[in-house]
Amino acid sequence: MAYPGIAHTPDPPYYAVIFTNQHAEHLEGYAETAERMVELARTIDGFLGVESVRAANGLGITVSYWRDEASIAQWKSQAEHTLARAQGREQWYADFFVRVARVERAYDRANTQP
Amino acid sequence: MAYPGIAHTPDPPYYAVIFTNQHAEHLEGYAETAERMVELARTIDGFLGVESVRAANGLGITVSYWRDEASIAQWKSQAEHTLARAQGREQWYADFFVRVARVERAYDRANTQP
Repeated sequence: MAYPGIAHTPDPPYYAVIFTNQHAEHLEGYAETAERMVELARTIDGFLGVESVRAANGLGITVSYWRDEASIAQWKSQAEHTLARAQGREQWYADFFVRVARVERAYDRANTQP
Repeated sequence: MAYPGIAHTPDPPYYAVIFTNQHAEHLEGYAETAERMVELARTIDGFLGVESVRAANGLGITVSYWRDEASIAQWKSQAEHTLARAQGREQWYADFFVRVARVERAYDRANTQP
């Protein structure tokens, strides 16, 4: 399964790429490409995990996690990923927003402050 | 509508709180509280926006955006929000992960690098 749920990332600091997007109407080829992109991302040194959710209304949030800016740059320059981004911009996404952020602290259900 | 889609945040830097969560089975009171929390968050000085998506399998990602760490701290200490977090931990979430991140750069569909 491409998106198994909550990502088990190491302790911060690391980076998050927050990709918020609204699907367009016609999604031919999207599912296969999305699956392939996760496969490919996993091969990049510094990839730490990915979380992805899409609602019935077509709004989606995918957050991928990376060791550092260098690993994000490597992923961005990957040829097949570059083609997929172009196709996404032209066909699959009516709108989107990308934010690159440095994760400074994190906690989970077992380690929350009261 | 509590979650209108993609948030229109100002230019970075600002902060993101990435809340990834898996719903529990019993969600009594959840929807009302979630709606109320967005209403309350909007009253906090430094709140910049929120994006939230939940899939049919119960996995959800909510990303809220904040001007600085001080506004996040203010939101965290808000009394009604503190109660809601406790209820979430005990009742509504089988699992979750919270990451606080500093957004360093951002771009949208109209301003993407080729």
